Amino acid sequence: MATTDQDDQLVTPWEVTAASQKGVDYDKLIKKFGSTKIEDSLIERIARLTGKPAHHLMRRGIIFSHRDVGLILDAYEKGKPFFLYTGRGPSSEAMHLGHLIPFVFTKYLQDVFDVPLVIQMTDDEKFLWKDMSVEEARRLASENAKDIIAFGFDKEKTSSPDFYKTILRVEKCVTVNQVKGIFGFNDSDCIGKISFPAIQAAPSFSCSFPQIFGGKKDIACLIPCAIDQDPYFRMTRDVAPRLGYPKPALLHSTFLPALQGAMTKMSASEASTSIYLTDSADDIRDKINKYAYSGGQSTVEEHRRMGGNVDVDVSYQYLTFFLEDDKKLAKIEKDYSSGAMLTGDLKKELISVVQQVVAEHQQRRQQVTEQMVQEFMTPRKLKYSY
Amino acid sequence: MATTDQDDQLVTPWEVTAASQKGVDYDKLIKKFGSTKIEDSLIERIARLTGKPAHHLMRRGIIFSHRDVGLILDAYEKGKPFFLYTGRGPSSEAMHLGHLIPFVFTKYLQDVFDVPLVIQMTDDEKFLWKDMSVEEARRLASENAKDIIAFGFDKEKTSSPDFYKTILRVEKCVTVNQVKGIFGFNDSDCIGKISFPAIQAAPSFSCSFPQIFGGKKDIACLIPCAIDQDPYFRMTRDVAPRLGYPKPALLHSTFLPALQGAMTKMSASEASTSIYLTDSADDIRDKINKYAYSGGQSTVEEHRRMGGNVDVDVSYQYLTFFLEDDKKLAKIEKDYSSGAMLTGDLKKELISVVQQVVAEHQQRRQQVTEQMVQEFMTPRKLKYSY
Repeated sequence: MATTDQDDQLVTPWEVTAASQKGVDYDKLIKKFGSTKIEDSLIERIARLTGKPAHHLMRRGIIFSHRDVGLILDAYEKGKPFFLYTGRGPSSEAMHLGHLIPFVFTKYLQDVFDVPLVIQMTDDEKFLWKDMSVEEARRLASENAKDIIAFGFDKEKTSSPDFYKTILRVEKCVTVNQVKGIFGFNDSDCIGKISFPAIQAAPSFSCSFPQIFGGKKDIACLIPCAIDQDPYFRMTRDVAPRLGYPKPALLHSTFLPALQGAMTKMSASEASTSIYLTDSADDIRDKINKYAYSGGQSTVEEHRRMGGNVDVDVSYQYLTFFLEDDKKLAKIEKDYSSGAMLTGDLKKELISVVQQVVAEHQQRRQQVTEQMVQEFMTPRKLKYSY
Repeated sequence: MATTDQDDQLVTPWEVTAASQKGVDYDKLIKKFGSTKIEDSLIERIARLTGKPAHHLMRRGIIFSHRDVGLILDAYEKGKPFFLYTGRGPSSEAMHLGHLIPFVFTKYLQDVFDVPLVIQMTDDEKFLWKDMSVEEARRLASENAKDIIAFGFDKEKTSSPDFYKTILRVEKCVTVNQVKGIFGFNDSDCIGKISFPAIQAAPSFSCSFPQIFGGKKDIACLIPCAIDQDPYFRMTRDVAPRLGYPKPALLHSTFLPALQGAMTKMSASEASTSIYLTDSADDIRDKINKYAYSGGQSTVEEHRRMGGNVDVDVSYQYLTFFLEDDKKLAKIEKDYSSGAMLTGDLKKELISVVQQVVAEHQQRRQQVTEQMVQEFMTPRKLKYSY
């Protein structure tokens, strides 16, 4: 629902605002959306089935909610195939740190399960919602594709006639009343917005990719995405049985907070809230020092005495996303909370971690050519057979 | 508007019913739609500019209404290019006689003006509106394409990414409120219907066909179509200036009446109202003898005394569409009206004309191969340069 909660928390595919400095209340969101909290048993099962340690984003509750992932694991255990689907709405040339999360996690899923992945670039959505030309949206999609390729994916994007057929089937199943209810559209919205949810839904079904799945329509799909995309896939799961397709399963992530604090998510269109993947080491140092909301006390003396608050401290929150070393993270939490570690030292730690993440990404992205983008964008058979 | 007139005349892209046996009141329709009646001066100008006699469908008022054709002729006189766009919604395997009309007329326009023609097969529309699978709609489109190719067209159909870009631009310009007003959609309609008008609008703009027009977006478009399609293009003409494209011009035809009379149009889904292009000579004879509504009197004696009424006689009406010989048509009108010609003789005349039209079509269609369909369907440069 696109309406504000009683508690003033708003989470839609286009806007996220929290009611408190601690950020979005994700437990409330699970209740409202009707999804399922990820329990330790699910995380352990994934580790056991894949024979690899569970990803730190899952262990730390950043990937916090899901739909039907148990069914995907049941199928996987029986040797049945599934595929991954995620996407990117290219709203600016430079992707930011928050955009890394779903791709880092999806790359892990592809690596441990060894399954096909489709990535939808929704430049059409950005054109419909933003003040942007079609050409500019397409150009940003191509630029962003380079960043995505830089993650080292084995991926596929298609816009084949069979994809259009699936879109039409979804479009025919969903009424105006339904999209008004789910997305809060109204009669002043353009007709492109009204039908866009069908375009985001279509890649959830294996029949959209005859090149990959040879026309099979029953291959299960797992969608790792941020929780704000759930409305699209609630709709998709509603129509799936009517079309004779399996419902896609979902893995939901929380949001990377804005530098200013967890009241809102990092936004590519607001430079001061974001660390871009194009930022230099100096940019990163300056932004974190200047903007990162601190949970520390106002004087060193007070901080030594009372300690810092990791629940609202953005630098600490970012470390839970990007510092993979669990022991080091636990020590930082302890020292900062006790007051042994000062805000300046915490920021210094984060600066070094983020500088390394971004520098490594920039190096990989430099090696991505236009031709590689073309190749990845062309519908084609992958290494899997069905 | 998709609502019934005060006079109970209903004309929408999906339904046509007249208030009287004389058929649709086209003068009322011109007033209601705000289009322009075709005057003799326009017909003479076309004959003069092309150096060819005006088509009998224009001379006889079957092509009766237009929008901005004067501007197209102004441009043509100055050596500026334009192109033709028409379409077909494939609702059944067998096209009927009424479907011939726009293609016969469009073929004439292409021949005398020597310009590109794009033909859109709207199997997507039929899928969204009818109880039909995507595959069946696509198959009917392919079958109907053979009939269209059998007309001897030099034609082009495209579904390139640039076509999708144009669709998105139109989708962004049109609100739900607007399509509700124009087409009578409501919130129980599926979202595919809501956005379909953008798909029908897009081929009106030359930027949709980069293969043909080399990316030029200012080539004028002339659309010959039946009058019930006008709502789509009123919408298209509204959005054109906002997108910086020229408004498409239009030439409207009346409907070929059902065999049972002019209260409704020939409908492919009601076999008894239609002569199909697949009917045998015997089928044609039997259908006309059995179903064609007669304007004659109930006994031979009465008919000799009072004469027949050509205004409601379906056989005579059909001859105005298909008998090209003006003198012969005038003699039939005179003799039937005076009572000198009996209904049986009039039907015999029509049977012979329709049998010839259909037999010639069947012969040409036999020569159309799957490969020809593929070639015509592939976006490609035509013989024109821009």
